[in-house]
Amino acid sequence: MLCTKPSHRWNTPFINITFLYGTKSNILKMSKEINNGREVNQVHFDTLKVRNEGAVLFVEINAPPMNLMGPELVRDLVSFIQQAEADDAAQVLVFKSGDADYFISHVDVTRIKENREPVMKLTGEASLGLLFHYLSKSRLVTIAQIEGRVRGVGSEFVLACDMRFAALESAIFGQFEPSFGVIPGAGGAQHLTRLLGRGRALEVMLSADDYNAELGERYGWINRALPGRELDDFVSSLALRISKFPAAGRAVVKERVNAIALPPAEDIRVDSKLFLDGAGTKEFQEVMQAAIKRGFQTREGELDLGRMMGDLP
Amino acid sequence: MLCTKPSHRWNTPFINITFLYGTKSNILKMSKEINNGREVNQVHFDTLKVRNEGAVLFVEINAPPMNLMGPELVRDLVSFIQQAEADDAAQVLVFKSGDADYFISHVDVTRIKENREPVMKLTGEASLGLLFHYLSKSRLVTIAQIEGRVRGVGSEFVLACDMRFAALESAIFGQFEPSFGVIPGAGGAQHLTRLLGRGRALEVMLSADDYNAELGERYGWINRALPGRELDDFVSSLALRISKFPAAGRAVVKERVNAIALPPAEDIRVDSKLFLDGAGTKEFQEVMQAAIKRGFQTREGELDLGRMMGDLP
Amino acid sequence: MLCTKPSHRWNTPFINITFLYGTKSNILKMSKEINNGREVNQVHFDTLKVRNEGAVLFVEINAPPMNLMGPELVRDLVSFIQQAEADDAAQVLVFKSGDADYFISHVDVTRIKENREPVMKLTGEASLGLLFHYLSKSRLVTIAQIEGRVRGVGSEFVLACDMRFAALESAIFGQFEPSFGVIPGAGGAQHLTRLLGRGRALEVMLSADDYNAELGERYGWINRALPGRELDDFVSSLALRISKFPAAGRAVVKERVNAIALPPAEDIRVDSKLFLDGAGTKEFQEVMQAAIKRGFQTREGELDLGRMMGDLP
Repeated sequence: MLCTKPSHRWNTPFINITFLYGTKSNILKMSKEINNGREVNQVHFDTLKVRNEGAVLFVEINAPPMNLMGPELVRDLVSFIQQAEADDAAQVLVFKSGDADYFISHVDVTRIKENREPVMKLTGEASLGLLFHYLSKSRLVTIAQIEGRVRGVGSEFVLACDMRFAALESAIFGQFEPSFGVIPGAGGAQHLTRLLGRGRALEVMLSADDYNAELGERYGWINRALPGRELDDFVSSLALRISKFPAAGRAVVKERVNAIALPPAEDIRVDSKLFLDGAGTKEFQEVMQAAIKRGFQTREGELDLGRMMGDLP
Repeated sequence: MLCTKPSHRWNTPFINITFLYGTKSNILKMSKEINNGREVNQVHFDTLKVRNEGAVLFVEINAPPMNLMGPELVRDLVSFIQQAEADDAAQVLVFKSGDADYFISHVDVTRIKENREPVMKLTGEASLGLLFHYLSKSRLVTIAQIEGRVRGVGSEFVLACDMRFAALESAIFGQFEPSFGVIPGAGGAQHLTRLLGRGRALEVMLSADDYNAELGERYGWINRALPGRELDDFVSSLALRISKFPAAGRAVVKERVNAIALPPAEDIRVDSKLFLDGAGTKEFQEVMQAAIKRGFQTREGELDLGRMMGDLP
Repeated sequence: MLCTKPSHRWNTPFINITFLYGTKSNILKMSKEINNGREVNQVHFDTLKVRNEGAVLFVEINAPPMNLMGPELVRDLVSFIQQAEADDAAQVLVFKSGDADYFISHVDVTRIKENREPVMKLTGEASLGLLFHYLSKSRLVTIAQIEGRVRGVGSEFVLACDMRFAALESAIFGQFEPSFGVIPGAGGAQHLTRLLGRGRALEVMLSADDYNAELGERYGWINRALPGRELDDFVSSLALRISKFPAAGRAVVKERVNAIALPPAEDIRVDSKLFLDGAGTKEFQEVMQAAIKRGFQTREGELDLGRMMGDLP
């Protein structure tokens, strides 16, 4: 189903789009590729690699060593979103990861306040939850293509996307904040409760455990789990398809669906404050220190994070 | 499980019911059948064939060539609903199709305003969405037994029914209005968001694609997908079972469930206006003309409508 | 995954907990067991057997001959909940049944008013729905481990628990009140509509039929259906895992999830009144008498209750 012919309707001047993305230093990293006869363009941020095809922007997250959501990634996401929204030729964003093991691991717990500051320039409030909320309300359609682990604020990011598709073999989901004694602080509790219902939302948060893609689909955490080898074609094809329909339809559908099902900003603000209050307690710091001793916030240590948190003394 | 014995509790004088349905001209088409020892009665509207069995009315939709929702079908639905509601012996309505390929294809796009007018006499407002909303609030329990394609306003009709069961092999669902740049105008966006959740509702509408019964069940679009050969017995048995329990239980359950989960009439009015606004634009007309050139609104052309809309230039 | 080592963090003085539960007469039945090297304690109410392991209390329901929800079971549940809430060492409650065929059959229909009275001392209102609502809002995390039949008020009890896991082979769910002409009176209609969506909630209540665990999972009635032989280990392990994380996380997550998804007490009051109104009618009494003649409220007669209600004349 992958559409390989250039779209006539969206016969976008690719080169112009490309120059719109990235800071000056990033533009130097821009490259042009010929991919199966399609002209595509790439532009790099420090932690994002953006490629456009017609009206779709494919965004690869690359924040080694484990795609932590730290200040650099937040800053690049803010810049990218601002530029993409300002570009009339951009219609659909696909987020994927350059790291097969980690989509987004979670927030950098050593820099919780620093992480939030770059959001100020987009929303007027330093809050990751409001950054994600901004994306949910954007005229841009957002699709998360998930391979590897996506936990904590990573899960909250994909929950704020308009759709989520995951690789059956590799995707792992976790909203583990309650194992540290706190609520997910960037909208996760809001989205999970609305998507999964009370019982399953309580289970996944209170267990703070890892969930695979099959169960993620069954519970409604994601739209669908697909075999990894089909995922890329499926999502690309869907994104291109959506991008070709009239923009007016996308706008009105998002507006009306959001009016029913998007968590209110105020609820996200409340959760954010509750998270920060909790993260400031001695108990949180103690759990964090114990977890870090076991390998928390390391690439190797978090391969089996669900088990690690269950085994903490 | 099909109950073939006449119900003692609902020993309805069939012949009286029969005369209640249909206009004078239709009554001429009335026929009486002996079916497996059960006396059943049939009455025809121009586009509906109504058969009763106990307190259940089985309504077969027959609007050749492809069960488009045009003024005739709307008029007949309005008349039938009025008569069924006025008949104390009627408790459950089962809607099915006389066309194996199309349950209801969609609204006749060449007669959008004309379609709505017959609803005025039922609800005081010329709106298909309010016709469906009226049915959702009715004391009558409604079950959609779906074989073949049900798209656009057809999907909105079955979403307004109290329950939906579909044939695994043949049922195909589509809410394709956004491929024309508009929102579903008769409650579809409201129901889908509440049933499927934000992510899946956005996917099915923004993709405007065809979904089979298996995925329809997984997403919550329908109650269940069943093998086609079992569907008729399953639904008949369920309808007869429900119809035999006390009416007071049906009334109070519908009232309390609707209080939580039925989209408010006001939201349906808003969507209806947004749809009409969109349908009046030049862009909508252009997409419609392009689609009609490819076979839109023809029986043959719409067998694979999802693909057709994706392939439009 | 079953944690068999004593938890260091929750090194609870078991013996102290034990004395907190049960009335004086019950304490006599207390027994101490050594189970796989874990010291566990047991305390009996007339209809409940409570065993603690760390911060988890395992509650076995034993109200022969069929775990009807009668005044004794209600009284014991009220006492147990009060004592568990007052015990800072208790964090998670697991409810299971001592009867392989019945988890909780349903309310004792011959003692509807008497059943409700013991709730007064907990909530100030004589209402089973408010007892269950109280449990949903409790700081204690509640898990229902379901084997056998759970119908009527039994279903409403497990729906009010924070999570529900059921045995694939034996669990059977029914919300059959509408076959008596009444709404579920203790919150069932509220929970089912929010968890299953409008179509499936209407189906399960209006059909008043039995649903197995596989379909219960597919519809969202329960979190998950598991093979019976795995269920006990799975739930024990989950309960112990949850109980070891900081209490602050459990409290804030339950509070925020409840703010979105817990049915308001006022809606439960309305349903309760509607149920009582219905149960006072001649029609309800007639159905009840007819059902009792067929074996309703007997262990043997209710093995196939769904069929029995469908076969009533």
